[in-house]
Amino acid sequence: MRVLDQLTKRPKLIVMDTMNYWMDSAWDDLMKVIERVDVLMVNDSEARQLTGDYSLVKAAQKILTMGPKYLVIKKGEHGALLFHGNSVFFAPALPLEEVFDPTGAGDTFAGGFIGHLASTGDISFGNMKNAIIYGSAMASFTVEKFGTEGLLNLTKEDIEDRLKLFVDLVQFDISLVNS
Amino acid sequence: MRVLDQLTKRPKLIVMDTMNYWMDSAWDDLMKVIERVDVLMVNDSEARQLTGDYSLVKAAQKILTMGPKYLVIKKGEHGALLFHGNSVFFAPALPLEEVFDPTGAGDTFAGGFIGHLASTGDISFGNMKNAIIYGSAMASFTVEKFGTEGLLNLTKEDIEDRLKLFVDLVQFDISLVNS
Repeated sequence: MRVLDQLTKRPKLIVMDTMNYWMDSAWDDLMKVIERVDVLMVNDSEARQLTGDYSLVKAAQKILTMGPKYLVIKKGEHGALLFHGNSVFFAPALPLEEVFDPTGAGDTFAGGFIGHLASTGDISFGNMKNAIIYGSAMASFTVEKFGTEGLLNLTKEDIEDRLKLFVDLVQFDISLVNS
Repeated sequence: MRVLDQLTKRPKLIVMDTMNYWMDSAWDDLMKVIERVDVLMVNDSEARQLTGDYSLVKAAQKILTMGPKYLVIKKGEHGALLFHGNSVFFAPALPLEEVFDPTGAGDTFAGGFIGHLASTGDISFGNMKNAIIYGSAMASFTVEKFGTEGLLNLTKEDIEDRLKLFVDLVQFDISLVNS
């Protein structure tokens, strides 16, 4: 809240990642901050704690009435969901041979997500889907090595190659009559 | 094995779904049947039991040396993976407001998968991806109601609408320089 209050001009997009700690210790204040952000980012258990709903779809509907227009629910190795209005987008985590150290994966994901939005300047829902894929790709580098080691020497090509893996992972081609 | 032995002509594709019960009680016989099928379908814990590998990527690599050319790993609410050679395809489960009764979801998935392959006669990897989506769509109807109720009165349009939800759920549009 204090960070937001220091801004003389409201930025184009405010993204917040919160966690169970603040729900346990500062519920009312947390609700006031959530009201002021555009994109809220939580994991699945935090979405449930925030709403009392087990169903992530129901939890998302409720959170989208609390202020944020967009909600990202991170599910760790099970991927991430992006909700906006009645639309849902899902990105899997990359199936890896070995997860060496998952520490920081969620933060890397958030960094990749907001970094893509910031570098393109495009905050449309379509580009947020891409940002989710960028976040997932970056997180896949983090978990492969210890700490930040997996990120330190990445090239543009490394990232591009990994994005390509995501395209191959989920791409299919069903022809629908009415679409 | 007895079913396979009764076939006078080997069909174009043999798909088998197995489970922990047979791994616990008839390991050697199970291995002999697995050797004879084209597509093996198991859930994540069964893939781990079958190989001793926690990583599903490693487990898949091992299972693809046991006979099957294709492996489907079902992860329930977390979707399904299709492995073939070095390729991987992933389909999420549809995020639903309520899962009323998950009984039979895996069997419905298998039925939708093989039904799509049988009705199109196309057993390419590309069409198997579509079959995974069909299986996931059919399973989403099963879990919404009790027993087989969700499937009894489905129309082609209902199925088409649900397939469309899957397209919307995973579709994104990243332009990659080298792809």
